[in-house]
Amino acid sequence: MKTLWIYAHPEPRSLNGSLRDEGVRTLRGLGHEVRESDLYAMNWRPVVAEDDFPGRQAGRLWVGDAQQTAYAEGTLSPDILAEQEKVLWADTIVIQFPLWWFGMPAILKGWFDRVFLQGFAFGLANPATGRQRRYGDNALSGKRALVVTTFGARESSMGPRGIHGAIDDLLFPLQHGILWYAGIAALPPLAIDGANRMSDDEYQLAAKRLRERLRNLPEQTAVPFRYQDHGDYDADLVLRPELAPGETGLSIHTSR
Amino acid sequence: MKTLWIYAHPEPRSLNGSLRDEGVRTLRGLGHEVRESDLYAMNWRPVVAEDDFPGRQAGRLWVGDAQQTAYAEGTLSPDILAEQEKVLWADTIVIQFPLWWFGMPAILKGWFDRVFLQGFAFGLANPATGRQRRYGDNALSGKRALVVTTFGARESSMGPRGIHGAIDDLLFPLQHGILWYAGIAALPPLAIDGANRMSDDEYQLAAKRLRERLRNLPEQTAVPFRYQDHGDYDADLVLRPELAPGETGLSIHTSR
Repeated sequence: MKTLWIYAHPEPRSLNGSLRDEGVRTLRGLGHEVRESDLYAMNWRPVVAEDDFPGRQAGRLWVGDAQQTAYAEGTLSPDILAEQEKVLWADTIVIQFPLWWFGMPAILKGWFDRVFLQGFAFGLANPATGRQRRYGDNALSGKRALVVTTFGARESSMGPRGIHGAIDDLLFPLQHGILWYAGIAALPPLAIDGANRMSDDEYQLAAKRLRERLRNLPEQTAVPFRYQDHGDYDADLVLRPELAPGETGLSIHTSR
Repeated sequence: MKTLWIYAHPEPRSLNGSLRDEGVRTLRGLGHEVRESDLYAMNWRPVVAEDDFPGRQAGRLWVGDAQQTAYAEGTLSPDILAEQEKVLWADTIVIQFPLWWFGMPAILKGWFDRVFLQGFAFGLANPATGRQRRYGDNALSGKRALVVTTFGARESSMGPRGIHGAIDDLLFPLQHGILWYAGIAALPPLAIDGANRMSDDEYQLAAKRLRERLRNLPEQTAVPFRYQDHGDYDADLVLRPELAPGETGLSIHTSR
């Protein structure tokens, strides 16, 4: 297994820092190759800016074609190219972060904003339908990802009827909207609660959960998100009425 | 009305730039006061870092108490203090951004990560329950917010059964998890689709929709998210079984 471990916490002497060390050590101990993107240590710039595309013409062309041209011509900013190379190298990606305001820290969101560009992560046409390939079948198909996240809330309050919203729904924009969109199979996330008041025993338990997930990574079944082009969605990309009939909510995009 | 307009697009000569100009002009034309946080123009730094808390002791204390102490003692970084002052001044906040990877651009996520700190946006105890005030009743109660977002997808694909997930669910971490958590009443978002291929006529229609929302702002009804402490949730912060019985999904946190 070739694993890229993306880590987005400012403080190495933290719960997240300890879990990252534990995780990388576990994978290497199992004989896997690991490369890291420690975003704070790299001083990663998360803001999409004009100099991401040094070759581009001035004007409106922030997105889409400008990305694809820069990717094809190899004229993207070197820090972006280095991250894309790591993603292409890896067969497995671990994305580890503390849940801040129910989402990724800005430094991590901006890793996706800058690295997952048209041409690299999406933008290929499906010859059968003429429309863009997305969701399951895309530029990064064949890779798998494990999200590891920590939060202070109790598990019950992030459960199916918990006040903060179910963790799977809160992570949907990342798991489905980014990873699955780009073709990456997203494993069920490892969500560690009570992160701001963890005892030594609780830490040992969290570390054990992480080690077990990493040991079993090759055999784990990904979240069964629906494919765009396997017949579940109509021409307007709306779920067909006979599937999860009458239901709404993000879970309808998972086949059960 | 005192409105803070937060804007997160890199290019003034864009759909978002034009809508921002239109919106600010409309509000001023109606006699309202407007202040702006143009995050790209301000070169806003979105990354939570040690020097956000110049007075703090070295070590693990990134969160919680360190935030609250720095806020109380006025020792936060000046760029954070300036944004907090604007929020306190405003009775209405407009948050405008292009939807990137189904969420906020990093520069905007990091505005919330750095500005909405414990002590400022939350962290007060409810004397009746002893638990933290959150969701509806919190430090920023009495303020209202309108999210204005643009995306390339067609409206159908972001609808209740659209492949990308319903826009209200995708915005839940912002609308409910950030705004409502801090006590801010979130209005129904203004979501503008087809943003990357808009004709002049379509732009005129989008601008009209924005002007109408702004003109009617004072009378608009906020999304009826449930309050934490009005009896809908049990002691574990789980929705009581007699409310939306048997249902899951993010919409259960709205009273209908």
